[in-house]
Amino acid sequence: MKLFRFGERGREEPGILAADGTLRSLVGVIPDIDGAALSPEALEVLRGTDTAALPPVPEGARIGPCVGGVGKLIGIGLNYSDHAEESGLPIPKEPIVFLKANTSIAGPYDEVVLPPDAKKADWEVELAFVIGTRAKHVAEADAMAHVAGYCIVNDISERAWQAEREGQWTKGKSYDGFAPMGPWLVTADEIADPGNLRMTCDVSGDRRQDGSTSTMIFGVATLVSYLSQFMTLEPGDVVTTGTPPGVGLGMRPQVWLKDGDVMRLEVAGLGHQEQAVRVAAP
Amino acid sequence: MKLFRFGERGREEPGILAADGTLRSLVGVIPDIDGAALSPEALEVLRGTDTAALPPVPEGARIGPCVGGVGKLIGIGLNYSDHAEESGLPIPKEPIVFLKANTSIAGPYDEVVLPPDAKKADWEVELAFVIGTRAKHVAEADAMAHVAGYCIVNDISERAWQAEREGQWTKGKSYDGFAPMGPWLVTADEIADPGNLRMTCDVSGDRRQDGSTSTMIFGVATLVSYLSQFMTLEPGDVVTTGTPPGVGLGMRPQVWLKDGDVMRLEVAGLGHQEQAVRVAAP
Repeated sequence: MKLFRFGERGREEPGILAADGTLRSLVGVIPDIDGAALSPEALEVLRGTDTAALPPVPEGARIGPCVGGVGKLIGIGLNYSDHAEESGLPIPKEPIVFLKANTSIAGPYDEVVLPPDAKKADWEVELAFVIGTRAKHVAEADAMAHVAGYCIVNDISERAWQAEREGQWTKGKSYDGFAPMGPWLVTADEIADPGNLRMTCDVSGDRRQDGSTSTMIFGVATLVSYLSQFMTLEPGDVVTTGTPPGVGLGMRPQVWLKDGDVMRLEVAGLGHQEQAVRVAAP
Repeated sequence: MKLFRFGERGREEPGILAADGTLRSLVGVIPDIDGAALSPEALEVLRGTDTAALPPVPEGARIGPCVGGVGKLIGIGLNYSDHAEESGLPIPKEPIVFLKANTSIAGPYDEVVLPPDAKKADWEVELAFVIGTRAKHVAEADAMAHVAGYCIVNDISERAWQAEREGQWTKGKSYDGFAPMGPWLVTADEIADPGNLRMTCDVSGDRRQDGSTSTMIFGVATLVSYLSQFMTLEPGDVVTTGTPPGVGLGMRPQVWLKDGDVMRLEVAGLGHQEQAVRVAAP
């Protein structure tokens, strides 16, 4: 299934892509695409829904982030060896884990409004997975059963805030709109191998990233198991798994997002995102 | 007002300390002590409640974390110059910001269950503040109006996970139960000066920390304003502001929490916490 959320920011409603390719509303069927909707049991019930009988989503409705009520948005750093290299950082021996503020979550087509003092805003196309059942101290062999599905996240980063303002990455990863998520939450049964998905990111028509999850250092099962040793993963938590090479930080000379840019991100099987970039007036 | 939450973990209900010192239930008055309850308007309505007419909280009820539905739990690192020194780290030039997973939030008297492979678990008594109204790009002069109140947070940290397992602090700050919060959310009107509160932490009867928020590097107003440049603070977000010296990391030889320890934390005007420590069987 391809699930999504539509409507005004903060008041999104659940939807599903019907077999005929139309967007249908799940209002009245479930309250939201959130942790409660993502258990295997809840997804099984959804699977039985006759999508043709559901009302269509209003024409032109905004598409919101594909998961609501996200408790934790977890990021994995430097999870592609060639991206670690372009960042001038060593290849990690175990996963690097950070949290993005959940207020950074946005819709896949929402405008990205950079604050006037953002100097080094950068793109990062990523495969994200969404937790369906609670995971605490889970073995790698049991890990995949906890994954409800997948989506694209653009892990937008302000590199100056991330690396030049003291301490942790949090500041550079958490600005409003820095985590466009979706359009689809694609259930796990539709993604035969999350470790072999082509992913691209174009900025204003130039191909900047062209990679595959096949070059990830730590795969989805490893990450679920690893993370669950340090914190309990709850249904609706989202883990964005790192980015392949081609970010602005790695270019020579370095290139940053500027007013008027358009980012277009695609991950095979998960749809595409497109965001216009605007720099707010001081 | 002193607000709190009581009942089973994950199903806590709102309460208020009555003028006569008894714990009263706010069930039926408000749904929870959460972002919606913490706006100036909502607090004003609560202030008009006749607490003597409220039902008492059941005898022996568990006291939960004093804020529900926390969107972000933000930590400030090395915010006491002498704690930075004992940690062997430079005094930060601007606030060091990290996020603790919100699944780490626990009640003030809940047992702290350490995983068997936790080697360097450490205590940190801290003043936390709770956001009452949304704050984005707020000036320092306007910052305090966004603070609904204060509480104690024990920012428990696994130092080996924090510093010896690659990358960011997140792993060492986010384990379940690593953020006992409360008992009271004390509204801002009752704390004349959050920059002058004595704070202590005893571990199994030994005084380990004895400090004052008067030695904080970045005070509450500075932190609200600063954070609001990097992320929007939402009602119900909690910011824990760092710890004074006396943590196990800074002792010579270093001392870590062990099975059977009891932590007792106090911050003037905010009550006290007490947690038994248990190490889970492997």
